[in-house]
Amino acid sequence: MIASTKVRVRYKDTDCMQVVYYGNYLTYFEVGRVEFLRQQGLPMSDVDRKVHLPVVEAVVRYARPARLDDLLEIRCWVSEQRRASFRFAYEIVSEDGETVATGSTLHACLEPATSKMIAVPPWLRDIMADVQPGPKPGV
Amino acid sequence: MIASTKVRVRYKDTDCMQVVYYGNYLTYFEVGRVEFLRQQGLPMSDVDRKVHLPVVEAVVRYARPARLDDLLEIRCWVSEQRRASFRFAYEIVSEDGETVATGSTLHACLEPATSKMIAVPPWLRDIMADVQPGPKPGV
Amino acid sequence: MIASTKVRVRYKDTDCMQVVYYGNYLTYFEVGRVEFLRQQGLPMSDVDRKVHLPVVEAVVRYARPARLDDLLEIRCWVSEQRRASFRFAYEIVSEDGETVATGSTLHACLEPATSKMIAVPPWLRDIMADVQPGPKPGV
Amino acid sequence: MIASTKVRVRYKDTDCMQVVYYGNYLTYFEVGRVEFLRQQGLPMSDVDRKVHLPVVEAVVRYARPARLDDLLEIRCWVSEQRRASFRFAYEIVSEDGETVATGSTLHACLEPATSKMIAVPPWLRDIMADVQPGPKPGV
Repeated sequence: MIASTKVRVRYKDTDCMQVVYYGNYLTYFEVGRVEFLRQQGLPMSDVDRKVHLPVVEAVVRYARPARLDDLLEIRCWVSEQRRASFRFAYEIVSEDGETVATGSTLHACLEPATSKMIAVPPWLRDIMADVQPGPKPGV
Repeated sequence: MIASTKVRVRYKDTDCMQVVYYGNYLTYFEVGRVEFLRQQGLPMSDVDRKVHLPVVEAVVRYARPARLDDLLEIRCWVSEQRRASFRFAYEIVSEDGETVATGSTLHACLEPATSKMIAVPPWLRDIMADVQPGPKPGV
Repeated sequence: MIASTKVRVRYKDTDCMQVVYYGNYLTYFEVGRVEFLRQQGLPMSDVDRKVHLPVVEAVVRYARPARLDDLLEIRCWVSEQRRASFRFAYEIVSEDGETVATGSTLHACLEPATSKMIAVPPWLRDIMADVQPGPKPGV
Repeated sequence: MIASTKVRVRYKDTDCMQVVYYGNYLTYFEVGRVEFLRQQGLPMSDVDRKVHLPVVEAVVRYARPARLDDLLEIRCWVSEQRRASFRFAYEIVSEDGETVATGSTLHACLEPATSKMIAVPPWLRDIMADVQPGPKPGV
């Protein structure tokens, strides 16, 4: 299952090199994974009450620049499952179908009350059953 | 008492018009007022435990653009005191002494536990005794 | 003519007070006015080639906080026309119809090649014929 | 040669999980590498005129959260040199000496006028002679 969502590039997202600032792709990744969860019936506010999913590692590969007013598609899917962590993979695609960026985020599971690491809860594991490799193996 | 602090313009702060994005001046104002409080012996984490100071109104006047790597001075002072609110005024100045932007933020005082509005606490009123008008009357 | 667009509050938009950071409303205003122009047949990239519209003054009034995952409506319209400048007004409304914030931005018109101030071009004046006062007179 | 610079965590940098938003570490990395270049006598505005250094890949590993008002040290050094690209490594350290995050950014060299890839210019290669491995081999 690949979730797809669109973002329009804002002035706020660009920098003086006239392209999207490199750090803002992590914001687009956030939008992508929140929509992944919503499309699985899990609004983020519900998730946060049950489990915290801090990012342990993030990787971005920049293929070509995005610019003001571009309408980008963010694709997000689960690329790896471990006992107490999992990985989302992302691909950002321009309107003419070119890959703009790829990447991944590795998430731990924390008990909200104690911030202790826990195993991936069964209800979360269930919606992540469909694991597909990331854009490039090993990332 | 006017607090002064410096910020260096980052790529992140600029946009594709090659100037500082207009919304980021409110971030510079935040840096200015947090430093005002620190210079009065009040680190922000201490303040937050005792009172919440949400912004009720913000005004920015843009005089000339700032650019990547500019070293800006942020001046911040108290420009108005009311029973349950107060106003910070700001002036942002370039290295060659030109005014880049001016503005103000009006703050309410909330009891942290209940989020109810309260009068400005005496310890906060004390450090704000020195009220000076803002850069332009009425702002 | 009031343009309406929706934004979903991202983690990136919030701060540690667990509400939308006050400066980010200026980003929402940007989204609102870019959509206003698009709905009038003027994509921002076209506009930028013909005229630069820097913000000369921005005002935000904060009515109630917005939070993670809120779906906000941004309403934007022209509230004032002058010879060489004009003002957009904004209202941000929550899903249950409550006003979250109001405000305005005053824009100058600059010739892109020279950055000299010019009169509002006729093609821009035309699409701004419908002037309505802002949420509060005088802002 | 390891460049060291300090950043104070702003409200703007935090999110509603009450920690620094994960994407903002890439902004801190930007501050670190711009200061690296400045400490080598190369202000960013000079560099940009001679060569563009877009990020081709970015990696962040999150060790422990940073919070509002924390004073973070950003350490930046060159961890890899290739013919037409090079890598900066980063370590972000809290005031009590704990590692908050590590990471790296891989940069290409582009001719500003044409945006064509070029070899690392000799003047840039010279100031990057001191290559040290990143915080974790292979990153």
